[in-house]
Amino acid sequence: MSTASATERPIPAGQRGPAEHERRDQIIQAADEHFRRYGYNKTSVADLAKAVGVSSAYVYRFFDSKQAIGEAVVARTLGRIQSALRETAAGPQSAAQRLRLIFKLMTEQGLELFFRERKLHDICVIATSERWSPVMAHIAVMLEVVTKVLTDGRASGEFERKTPLDEASLAICEALMPFAHPILLQQRTRAELELSTAAVTNLVLRSLSP
Amino acid sequence: MSTASATERPIPAGQRGPAEHERRDQIIQAADEHFRRYGYNKTSVADLAKAVGVSSAYVYRFFDSKQAIGEAVVARTLGRIQSALRETAAGPQSAAQRLRLIFKLMTEQGLELFFRERKLHDICVIATSERWSPVMAHIAVMLEVVTKVLTDGRASGEFERKTPLDEASLAICEALMPFAHPILLQQRTRAELELSTAAVTNLVLRSLSP
Repeated sequence: MSTASATERPIPAGQRGPAEHERRDQIIQAADEHFRRYGYNKTSVADLAKAVGVSSAYVYRFFDSKQAIGEAVVARTLGRIQSALRETAAGPQSAAQRLRLIFKLMTEQGLELFFRERKLHDICVIATSERWSPVMAHIAVMLEVVTKVLTDGRASGEFERKTPLDEASLAICEALMPFAHPILLQQRTRAELELSTAAVTNLVLRSLSP
Repeated sequence: MSTASATERPIPAGQRGPAEHERRDQIIQAADEHFRRYGYNKTSVADLAKAVGVSSAYVYRFFDSKQAIGEAVVARTLGRIQSALRETAAGPQSAAQRLRLIFKLMTEQGLELFFRERKLHDICVIATSERWSPVMAHIAVMLEVVTKVLTDGRASGEFERKTPLDEASLAICEALMPFAHPILLQQRTRAELELSTAAVTNLVLRSLSP
């Protein structure tokens, strides 16, 4: 497995990449846990270094600042929702059914990822209110998957084609907002959210009828 | 003007009501200004009493607690939006046009009332996240005016009648949320909000076509 050059060094060159990648993941994992337990503001880079068993200087080899670690935590959390969204958008169902699934998925995944143990992950609030880049990227993915499903539904004749595509996609993303935004999710009960998700999905589908 | 009994007392009975009402308003006004300038958490009942020139005990004759004062401030702020909403819902325009005006009004009034001097009135965030009763009452008014306009539009034949009225009204209120919620208003520029308001209004109106 190891190359000739790798055997000449204490940390094999061939393995340094993966090993460092693993360290980076450990830091993100420790940060996620610390931020959930103690909050983002009350966690220092030194706390994270200690948790992983390295020096703060070592952590700074991977991340410029605490915010950079926070962004990585948010990117990882949202990345899971994004994968699920893209998978749903590319699914075999009708466009209407995929749109329904996207609304359902946003609510479900949001509740699960932001609120593990019923407490809002405070970094989500900071990231949304300061518009961190992973949040903006997430909104772009929402727009991308909605546009994809709309395009499919227009091509198949399921949806109307008169409204400009970008306007219709933007409006649907706005309609998703009460189910995508951590603060709005926080302020409602699951029962309220389920009723609202169904009602809004039906409204959106009515708006798309040819 | 003054009754016989009134002349016998230092504070005339006939004038006590109006005078006290005025005091109550002064306290609410002082609270609004203090909360905007220093924040809700950093303002005490003593600060407000001092600003109005009365004792804390006197303030407590009108309000049980600081939160009760906060609720009065929020109720007054939202009351202005509610009057405008009800007036719009009862207007002479077509139901579609009134719905358009309601969306526009929510965005405009929200930006103006929550953000005087470009800083979010922090009590709005506390009131929404803790679901204070004036906030719940405001949501009820939103639902009321939307239901009224939908009912009118159904009666005149402008809108479809197949969807249960309560479901359609709920969905439209959800669609209004990005323009009604102070935190969501805060996170976007005016240009973004105007574009989104127009797109969502069009989506809602398409969903209502018979």
